[in-house]
Amino acid sequence: MNKEQIFTIFGGTGDLTFRKLLPALYNIEAADDKELSARIVVVGRRDYTSESYREAARGWVEKFARLRFQKETYEKFAGRIVYYRMDFTDENAYEGLDSFYKKMQAGSHIFYFAVAPRFFSAIVKGLKRVEGAGEGKVVIEKPFGESLPAAAKLNESMEAFFKADHIYRIDHYLGKEMVRNIQIIRFANPIFSHVWDAEHIECIQISAMEEVGVETRGGYYDHSGALKDMVQNHLFQILTIVAMEQPESMAVEDMHREQIKVLKALRIPEDISEHMVLGQYEGYREEPAVNENSTTETYAALRLLVDNDRWRGMPFYVRTGKKLGTREMQVAIVFKSPAEGVEPDILNIKIQPTEGVYLQFNIKKPGETEELSQAKMDFCQNCSLVNRMNTPEAYERLLGACMRGERSWFSQWDQVEISWSYVDEVRKQYRQKGLPAYGYRQGSSGPEEAERLLKSFGHRWFE
Amino acid sequence: MNKEQIFTIFGGTGDLTFRKLLPALYNIEAADDKELSARIVVVGRRDYTSESYREAARGWVEKFARLRFQKETYEKFAGRIVYYRMDFTDENAYEGLDSFYKKMQAGSHIFYFAVAPRFFSAIVKGLKRVEGAGEGKVVIEKPFGESLPAAAKLNESMEAFFKADHIYRIDHYLGKEMVRNIQIIRFANPIFSHVWDAEHIECIQISAMEEVGVETRGGYYDHSGALKDMVQNHLFQILTIVAMEQPESMAVEDMHREQIKVLKALRIPEDISEHMVLGQYEGYREEPAVNENSTTETYAALRLLVDNDRWRGMPFYVRTGKKLGTREMQVAIVFKSPAEGVEPDILNIKIQPTEGVYLQFNIKKPGETEELSQAKMDFCQNCSLVNRMNTPEAYERLLGACMRGERSWFSQWDQVEISWSYVDEVRKQYRQKGLPAYGYRQGSSGPEEAERLLKSFGHRWFE
Ligand SMILES: NC(=O)c1ccc[n+]([C@@H]2O[C@H](COP(=O)([O-])OP(=O)(O)OC[C@H]3O[C@@H](n4cnc5c(N)ncnc54)[C@H](OP(=O)(O)O)[C@@H]3O)[C@@H](O)[C@H]2O)c1
Ligand SMILES: NC(=O)c1ccc[n+]([C@@H]2O[C@H](COP(=O)([O-])OP(=O)(O)OC[C@H]3O[C@@H](n4cnc5c(N)ncnc54)[C@H](OP(=O)(O)O)[C@@H]3O)[C@@H](O)[C@H]2O)c1
Repeated sequence: MNKEQIFTIFGGTGDLTFRKLLPALYNIEAADDKELSARIVVVGRRDYTSESYREAARGWVEKFARLRFQKETYEKFAGRIVYYRMDFTDENAYEGLDSFYKKMQAGSHIFYFAVAPRFFSAIVKGLKRVEGAGEGKVVIEKPFGESLPAAAKLNESMEAFFKADHIYRIDHYLGKEMVRNIQIIRFANPIFSHVWDAEHIECIQISAMEEVGVETRGGYYDHSGALKDMVQNHLFQILTIVAMEQPESMAVEDMHREQIKVLKALRIPEDISEHMVLGQYEGYREEPAVNENSTTETYAALRLLVDNDRWRGMPFYVRTGKKLGTREMQVAIVFKSPAEGVEPDILNIKIQPTEGVYLQFNIKKPGETEELSQAKMDFCQNCSLVNRMNTPEAYERLLGACMRGERSWFSQWDQVEISWSYVDEVRKQYRQKGLPAYGYRQGSSGPEEAERLLKSFGHRWFE
Repeated sequence: MNKEQIFTIFGGTGDLTFRKLLPALYNIEAADDKELSARIVVVGRRDYTSESYREAARGWVEKFARLRFQKETYEKFAGRIVYYRMDFTDENAYEGLDSFYKKMQAGSHIFYFAVAPRFFSAIVKGLKRVEGAGEGKVVIEKPFGESLPAAAKLNESMEAFFKADHIYRIDHYLGKEMVRNIQIIRFANPIFSHVWDAEHIECIQISAMEEVGVETRGGYYDHSGALKDMVQNHLFQILTIVAMEQPESMAVEDMHREQIKVLKALRIPEDISEHMVLGQYEGYREEPAVNENSTTETYAALRLLVDNDRWRGMPFYVRTGKKLGTREMQVAIVFKSPAEGVEPDILNIKIQPTEGVYLQFNIKKPGETEELSQAKMDFCQNCSLVNRMNTPEAYERLLGACMRGERSWFSQWDQVEISWSYVDEVRKQYRQKGLPAYGYRQGSSGPEEAERLLKSFGHRWFE
């Protein structure tokens, strides 16, 4: 008799599940039904039956799934879903879950922790009562803790129960098409690989600008802030892919080894005030669930140095923030200018919302003149409908990879560890200097101090 | 009393004058009336008065001028035009022309020879009877002769009368926006200048494909052919701009010196059959005014080697032809492939009809794969109406330059001379080997032999 693969979502009635996980799972079903052979157990406290849960889920899938909603496909998909009501902080409740799994003929397990990290240990503790759970895979969301010690403790408790290589830390930026493309662009195109170093590049700018504020997540965000929420994970991941040496192969270990080398070469600056600027948008303290005296940063800009032969002396500028004038994530490779007064060539890798690449270069102004102007050669990946439909979304891609056991595009513990130690250190130094989170207007491009940060090194942010 | 600048067009009732010169002169008037301060004398045999000529010219200007037709501007422009009827092979007629100029208070002269080259000496002879004509400038059209000896003789007779630096040899490709842009793209963009050599480039392809056949100009063309009509002048000009070292300045002498170095480094191949393919489209011999046994080539493809440090060993492929499937002129820089089976990066400079640049590069196929596919970053210069309206056409630009005495973008005698010696030599060798002009279908991309030419070196033409 065939044992079933079970995909259990703790937090199965939460925002993440409805908006991201269910639509992603539906896409997997619709794209290729061989892949999704699991039963899906959603765990929550709310009063659903499997039947009423499937009905509720339907609306979210219709609204958020990439692939067209089809009745038959949804029915097949919904047929996999069972709702299981329990309080996951109640250790005894897991006995019931265990018998439930047994009745289902549960074979292998994947557990998705779509809940706040403070609940992780409770769930792990409970799962000890579930037969075979420790052999399963577990998927966890950022934030991986709130500091290095907290993350280490969390990791320890996870690794005490699950096998280290069964822990899938999702960084959904790693599921994005253009993030995966960075290394291809770098290594499959000699025109770029020849000039990918401090000798030819003036600076590299990684920007993740958000238009929204903290919305309904002020409670979570106010304990986190831009450094922990964005820089420690997403931006450091991207930075290491941009900066790493060519891995021996595309296998997880090879790429990971090169990323770690970059993280280890990151230098903590001597005077933090010249290397980091934090900001807080005006009105943040009035947001729901935010402390009225909050000093949490909603904006962070950093000047990072990677101390190795390829990058020595060349700054990586990294910035992210909420309530900025645009929603835009991109990596700008700013090449050295050929002569004083001539604009630099810029290779821009656009990650979202537009996916693509453009090269800004110098050209003659049209007409009877030899003056220069700047033009853009542009490639847009998701501007054609066909490509948009063909490109899996980040969660879809990462869930599929987890099911297949492909670990390349998940965060490894030592990456998390080094990133946290760096972020903890710069935060500490910044606080010690008594530096504030500078105010900035909503809809602006961040605090003026972030402009000054670059100006003092003769640079400026490129939009 | 102010003496007038006189712009005289011999062949003032010809096709070139109506379709190109008058519209260009009108544009100069309309764009900036300070520039066009000349009177325009059009010389022909036909029965026009100045009045009726202006009326006839009006229709051509309306149809062909870049800038919007405006009644007042045209009237101002037409007011400059006088028609002068004469047979320019009749030496005595120039006495009349001389008194006509005197009546007009002629100051300086520009003579435009919009006539077949066989008439050049007759006109020069006649102009000896016109006071001050030898001090004037003269503009001549391609072809500059039909072979090196003919061109040399022609040049000698021109230089015996006009000052060498008053002779403006128009190569209208040198007036094209993107041809002028080649050196800017090369030298103002480090991302390209770093890799502009045989070490990084696999081959360079210069293509000038025409959709039309010989049309009404079969008589002229059948005595000329693709090598003399296109390769000797336009394509060699472009090749030298692509291949030259960076000139010390944009001044005519500096650029010209570097172009000459390239021409001198061109090598005559040992075995022409591996380096040149001529073709003739099917049906060419039935065209009006074409010899029924004609062996004239309407297509030419060459493999050229520039024997200097930058280019040693790297082929320049050059091709041009009539009655091909597309109308398109472009320069493709094909970079070396990074690995076996990986497509090369290609920088494509589009000269006409689209003006622009694109870079073909490798990218990840969208979706759950690490396979490569090719994408294009594209910049189109004349796709926006504003740019199209702002960009002077080739003749407009070159006539303006001649009036201002700017010689950078005209062919110099030694360029013409070396190009002719090269073209004469390859034609001779090709004939001596008994190689034919291979037939090709109308609407195809040329004779199959031209594909084979590249294939034997492991290359292919890029479309
Ligand atoms: N939302 C996002 O876009 C997003 C993005 C990235 C990362 N994350 C991370 O994902 C996690 C979940 O976020 P979320 O936005 O989905 O949170 P949420 O909307 O607040 O959902 C919380 C979920 O946990 C369940 N839950 C809470 N306490 C429980 C208990 N004692 N027993 C059983 N179930 C309990 C809730 O069930 P009931 O409602 O049935 O009580 C609900 O399903 C967080 O770690 C967050 O940082 C979220
Ligand atoms: N057409 C083009 O697009 C083009 C492009 C590049 C280069 N070119 C070159 O430009 C030159 C002219 O070409 P085209 O196409 O304009 O030629 P075309 O249409 O045949 O015009 C010839 C002109 O020469 C005049 N002419 C001929 N014999 C004359 C004489 N004995 N006395 C006075 N005028 C005489 C004609 O005047 P009447 O008609 O009044 O007799 C007419 O104005 C050629 O060298 C050609 O190769 C032309």
